[in-house]
Amino acid sequence: MANNREYIAIHTSRFIEELIEFLRIPSISTLPEHTVDIKKAANFVKDRLLAAGVDKAWLIETTGHPLVYGEKIVHPQLPTVLVYGHYDVQPADPYELWESEPFEPVIKDNKIFARGAADDKGQVYIHVKALETMVATQSLSCNVKFLIEGEEEKGSEGLTAFLENPYNHDLIQADAILVSDTTILSIDQPSLTTGLRGIIYFEVTLTGPNRDLHSGVYGGAVGNPINILCKMLATLHDENRHITIPGFYDKVPNLTDAERTELNKVPFDLLCYQQSIGIDEVIGEEGYTTLERVGIRPSLDIHGIWGGYIGKGAKTVLPDQAHAKLSMRLVPNQDANEVAEAFTKYFSSLAPKGTKIQIKLEHGGCNAIVLSQDSTAFQAAQNAFETVWGKRPLATREGGSIPIIAKFREKLGCDIILMGFSLDSDAIHSPNEHFSLTAFSKGISTVISFYENLAKLSKG
Amino acid sequence: MANNREYIAIHTSRFIEELIEFLRIPSISTLPEHTVDIKKAANFVKDRLLAAGVDKAWLIETTGHPLVYGEKIVHPQLPTVLVYGHYDVQPADPYELWESEPFEPVIKDNKIFARGAADDKGQVYIHVKALETMVATQSLSCNVKFLIEGEEEKGSEGLTAFLENPYNHDLIQADAILVSDTTILSIDQPSLTTGLRGIIYFEVTLTGPNRDLHSGVYGGAVGNPINILCKMLATLHDENRHITIPGFYDKVPNLTDAERTELNKVPFDLLCYQQSIGIDEVIGEEGYTTLERVGIRPSLDIHGIWGGYIGKGAKTVLPDQAHAKLSMRLVPNQDANEVAEAFTKYFSSLAPKGTKIQIKLEHGGCNAIVLSQDSTAFQAAQNAFETVWGKRPLATREGGSIPIIAKFREKLGCDIILMGFSLDSDAIHSPNEHFSLTAFSKGISTVISFYENLAKLSKG
Repeated sequence: MANNREYIAIHTSRFIEELIEFLRIPSISTLPEHTVDIKKAANFVKDRLLAAGVDKAWLIETTGHPLVYGEKIVHPQLPTVLVYGHYDVQPADPYELWESEPFEPVIKDNKIFARGAADDKGQVYIHVKALETMVATQSLSCNVKFLIEGEEEKGSEGLTAFLENPYNHDLIQADAILVSDTTILSIDQPSLTTGLRGIIYFEVTLTGPNRDLHSGVYGGAVGNPINILCKMLATLHDENRHITIPGFYDKVPNLTDAERTELNKVPFDLLCYQQSIGIDEVIGEEGYTTLERVGIRPSLDIHGIWGGYIGKGAKTVLPDQAHAKLSMRLVPNQDANEVAEAFTKYFSSLAPKGTKIQIKLEHGGCNAIVLSQDSTAFQAAQNAFETVWGKRPLATREGGSIPIIAKFREKLGCDIILMGFSLDSDAIHSPNEHFSLTAFSKGISTVISFYENLAKLSKG
Repeated sequence: MANNREYIAIHTSRFIEELIEFLRIPSISTLPEHTVDIKKAANFVKDRLLAAGVDKAWLIETTGHPLVYGEKIVHPQLPTVLVYGHYDVQPADPYELWESEPFEPVIKDNKIFARGAADDKGQVYIHVKALETMVATQSLSCNVKFLIEGEEEKGSEGLTAFLENPYNHDLIQADAILVSDTTILSIDQPSLTTGLRGIIYFEVTLTGPNRDLHSGVYGGAVGNPINILCKMLATLHDENRHITIPGFYDKVPNLTDAERTELNKVPFDLLCYQQSIGIDEVIGEEGYTTLERVGIRPSLDIHGIWGGYIGKGAKTVLPDQAHAKLSMRLVPNQDANEVAEAFTKYFSSLAPKGTKIQIKLEHGGCNAIVLSQDSTAFQAAQNAFETVWGKRPLATREGGSIPIIAKFREKLGCDIILMGFSLDSDAIHSPNEHFSLTAFSKGISTVISFYENLAKLSKG
């Protein structure tokens, strides 16, 4: 371990330079015009894995963007860990709100600012450099496989298809899957994520007249698609901000008071939380704390809305259509397909006669998951954090979703460790996304320590 | 009159060529990048007036776009008519829905297709060519003044300021103001507009967190500006589609059953109306007919809405802001300023703690007006339609607003005649706006006949 610490200390500045190179590639998976950058990012990861010392690495073509696979097999008897992550990023708009270029990384206050810095390139690179270190110091005590995809931000369709094919399972078979795409509570309080919400995402379009109309001539006599869509969307929550879709909560587990008390023990400062995002009051489902609202309760958010005239000045138009993108975050036991069906049925019923509603499933939904805390791998992860951060990590439920995690468990059935190193304040999916360089280097040590502990615990 | 008919017959094709030239100028008043085109259109009108035979014509600079003024004084004893119209047009988007270029006029089925064809360039040009004809045949029996503005589609601020200055009134003093910026019932049933709704237009912005947030991490715990703005906008109408702003209807007159019966006598085919705009049911305020909903009832329409991610694919963002443009159409007795105040107070109260609402008055509002049907000028107009169209025109209330009309009456106090020649189906403010060439040439004859009748009736 001493050698490893030394190696990391000597090479950290180079690690960061390489990460900057990685972050310069605008590998936005949802925008077709960035397909070239996607390929570039995939090859970057492959080349870096080879340089880090994997036995072999190559790109696996999928129905969408390619997977990067690499492996270092030390000995068949040793435990095997599959590292999963993604090299694609979210779109960077609204660009005008970035203080520096989203794809021109800048280091400020020991943080690196760029789209993808925390989600997920910075965290993927922790694993690449951890491998390089262990190979260089000949301390790698497990077999390691990498599977880094390029469609996580758009639904992981290619990887899902790959996992559906049993012939692919041998290649990626492992004792544990290690993922760094989640958050820790704070830089002083590490945590391990033991639950993730599911998600189902839609785009809806309401159509009224066959063309834009003059609001003076027709206003008041013809249904206005924007007025009506707003009403329909508003109907999805009641006064207490419960979601009104019939049956939506049927399978949502009611936690016991004991469980809720436990969950709320996690250190959380509501004032700091509000200040960090510039609001003077949180708004959410009646009767639940903020931690519960994102941890154990489902939610429904509109991500985008557009229709009519949105240029400068005034245009008195009654538009022919209005559009919105929205998703529901799901908790354990909720079935994404059932929810999708219930939403579609209910939302369609809200469209009045004289209008047409189209509801498009934006990408395959995924169910929430809860991970075991008893596995050898989980203990290895706990010990690793304790060793490197000097504190036992707390177990947390996270509001976000990693659709592919449920699929991994279903298909490979092995333990899954969500060992994230980013912070809620890292502004992922937002302008000025950043990643703490402290978390970056501590992350490398934590991953190395995880391998050591896993090998030890597996032997015993 | 015979000479006039002949002159028109001989020269109509040239008239249309000139109109096409006029329509080619993209004089969009709301978009700063078209300021050059605005000037170009103003000069086009000025030059055409001089060519038509006015004594003099020039541009009058304003706080905004220039006014075009021209006059032909035949004899001080003759009645004087002030022709008002506008050379500016609405923006042409959505461009993709135009079957031909909005500023490359095309003639199809005896209609001319272009932005501004009906609103208002085609109708303004009727008056220019009527003047040319009467001058050429030496049959002009009134004094004529022209005041053509370039800001009607953005609130007529420059002209309003011009009218506020009493020193300007002598120049435009007249016995009647003649305006062609409204519709007739059909090409077989002429009509004269005797009422116009008022309007008040706002842009609203709701702000939540200080940046876009990840909807997984924050969804359900932080107020989503789009969800909330939709709820606020939806609240503006109740289940019966009455507007919920406190006091909004206080000054709305309740017509007697007799008045309502009279109003509904106007020939109107609901099925044709629905078919013409591609809807299978009208949606409007409970308890009123379509004619009443646009004629005597106020309305509230959202013209545009935008916020969050509106690109391709899925982005799971909880946006920092949401925006909307909306306006209210007002009926007689409603005071635009009072309504503006009531809306601002009420809408602000709908924004929950934890959010900020900005409400911007897009441009000065205007009250509704009702015009006299007993004046000499109105009779002259009725007779003119009867002569040229072979049918007595019906009196109609129109849903649209011409903010400046109320101001003209307030400042000049003379009769106002709304002698429009376009049709509801002309798609003004919409893609594929067009104007009937029959209405164009009949319009020229109607205007000429109006001058003849006005001179005759004024003598008697």
